[in-house]
Amino acid sequence: MKAVMVNGIERPLDLLNQSKGKDVLIQLKGDKQFVGTLLAFDMHINVALDNAKEIEGGEVKKNIGLTFLRGDTIIYISPASNK
Amino acid sequence: MKAVMVNGIERPLDLLNQSKGKDVLIQLKGDKQFVGTLLAFDMHINVALDNAKEIEGGEVKKNIGLTFLRGDTIIYISPASNK
Amino acid sequence: MKAVMVNGIERPLDLLNQSKGKDVLIQLKGDKQFVGTLLAFDMHINVALDNAKEIEGGEVKKNIGLTFLRGDTIIYISPASNK
Amino acid sequence: MKAVMVNGIERPLDLLNQSKGKDVLIQLKGDKQFVGTLLAFDMHINVALDNAKEIEGGEVKKNIGLTFLRGDTIIYISPASNK
Amino acid sequence: MKAVMVNGIERPLDLLNQSKGKDVLIQLKGDKQFVGTLLAFDMHINVALDNAKEIEGGEVKKNIGLTFLRGDTIIYISPASNK
Amino acid sequence: MKAVMVNGIERPLDLLNQSKGKDVLIQLKGDKQFVGTLLAFDMHINVALDNAKEIEGGEVKKNIGLTFLRGDTIIYISPASNK
Amino acid sequence: MKAVMVNGIERPLDLLNQSKGKDVLIQLKGDKQFVGTLLAFDMHINVALDNAKEIEGGEVKKNIGLTFLRGDTIIYISPASNK
Repeated sequence: MKAVMVNGIERPLDLLNQSKGKDVLIQLKGDKQFVGTLLAFDMHINVALDNAKEIEGGEVKKNIGLTFLRGDTIIYISPASNK
Repeated sequence: MKAVMVNGIERPLDLLNQSKGKDVLIQLKGDKQFVGTLLAFDMHINVALDNAKEIEGGEVKKNIGLTFLRGDTIIYISPASNK
Repeated sequence: MKAVMVNGIERPLDLLNQSKGKDVLIQLKGDKQFVGTLLAFDMHINVALDNAKEIEGGEVKKNIGLTFLRGDTIIYISPASNK
Repeated sequence: MKAVMVNGIERPLDLLNQSKGKDVLIQLKGDKQFVGTLLAFDMHINVALDNAKEIEGGEVKKNIGLTFLRGDTIIYISPASNK
Repeated sequence: MKAVMVNGIERPLDLLNQSKGKDVLIQLKGDKQFVGTLLAFDMHINVALDNAKEIEGGEVKKNIGLTFLRGDTIIYISPASNK
Repeated sequence: MKAVMVNGIERPLDLLNQSKGKDVLIQLKGDKQFVGTLLAFDMHINVALDNAKEIEGGEVKKNIGLTFLRGDTIIYISPASNK
Repeated sequence: MKAVMVNGIERPLDLLNQSKGKDVLIQLKGDKQFVGTLLAFDMHINVALDNAKEIEGGEVKKNIGLTFLRGDTIIYISPASNK
């Protein structure tokens, strides 16, 4: 068997596609974190978030609401309620 | 249902397109921030701002007016009045 | 003899393909480490992990579960049980 | 209405095109600044300046005259007399 | 004479091709070093190593066995037994 | 009037083309400077210099003669005798 | 006259082509230096060196012999005997 499919994830972007409309945690370079609802992403991993909040040291530092994040600074994106 | 559309945002650049003519907050790498009116952007996320102000520690540091910002240094862009 | 094949690895991505469905250790720039089950990868070395855990100093720092990791920050990926 | 046009700026490079022959302030990464007359630019945001001066702490540090600046190190370009 | 050929190396990748199946020393940015058997490489200088060992200060820090290394962080690759 | 032409410079590379055979000052990232005669350049801003000298703190640190400089590390290139 | 030709160098890579089979000094980012015989290079400025030596503070730190160097970390390449 060549392809492995867990929850229908065959390519990494499938995971992001499944996370649309859900809350995600986004870790940026330089220890910034965002939580928010994933509205959209593109192949550069640019993302649009709704109700975005900047997190520092586990606490909400700033509400920035609707936000465009450049993919270039992103380390990982994780759906919030999957552990 | 495959696509999620909140406020008509299907791709991340749709958010920027909706923000044209509105005030935005732009966070750069290295903790520089700009506020200004979003005039235009391109696929490299280069942006043109009107009435741009450089912000440091929550205060206006410099008025730079009409400004071209290279996309390469941008972390996020958020419409100012959406929280 | 031109090509060398150890365990059927002719190109570097063959190693990742063989690791699908297995636990891997992923070393990021800036000393972050992840362990998790490799679900998928693409040619940018973006990866999807299941049951991902962030490791620091050899200990689990955070359970982040299902996770999309951008290839850009990755140094190496190693199947966990191959030594 | 889809496109917003302020002063005829529909794309970010329109702003640079309008600034040709005018004095501009260029902010580089690592806090270097240049002022000079914008002669030309290309799609990589490489620029040619005339009468370029390197600025540090608000003062002229060095006159470097005619200068080619690589776009890669540029953060923003602002026409000097627009505030 | 235009081309120089030492040991049949006309292009830099010829050296890597000759090193397949041999032990190599790989120097990464940030002073990490790896030794291991070169299984495969691609044009991005991504490499697959067998029996990889992470070296620090001349000593083996960790056995990581079969490993995929992203080319992006590599400074040099040298066959171990060529001095 | 759409195009501005000062000394025949319509594109940034025209400035480099005019500087061929002349002495230039090249500023690199990380405060290294070179002076030398510009022999050639390409679209990546790689340059070939003759009689190159590495400058530190305004003084000649090293004569390196004929030199190939990768464009990637260059901030600016300025013909030496244009102020 | 449009093109300048010194010693037949019309493009930067001509300098590297002329240096094949000769000893070169290679300066890397982060102050590492290599000397060795230039065997080959490609358009990414990846190079293959023979008899490569790592230099630190003007002294030979390590003999690494036959070596593949990724172009990405290179600042300059200079034929050793041209001053």
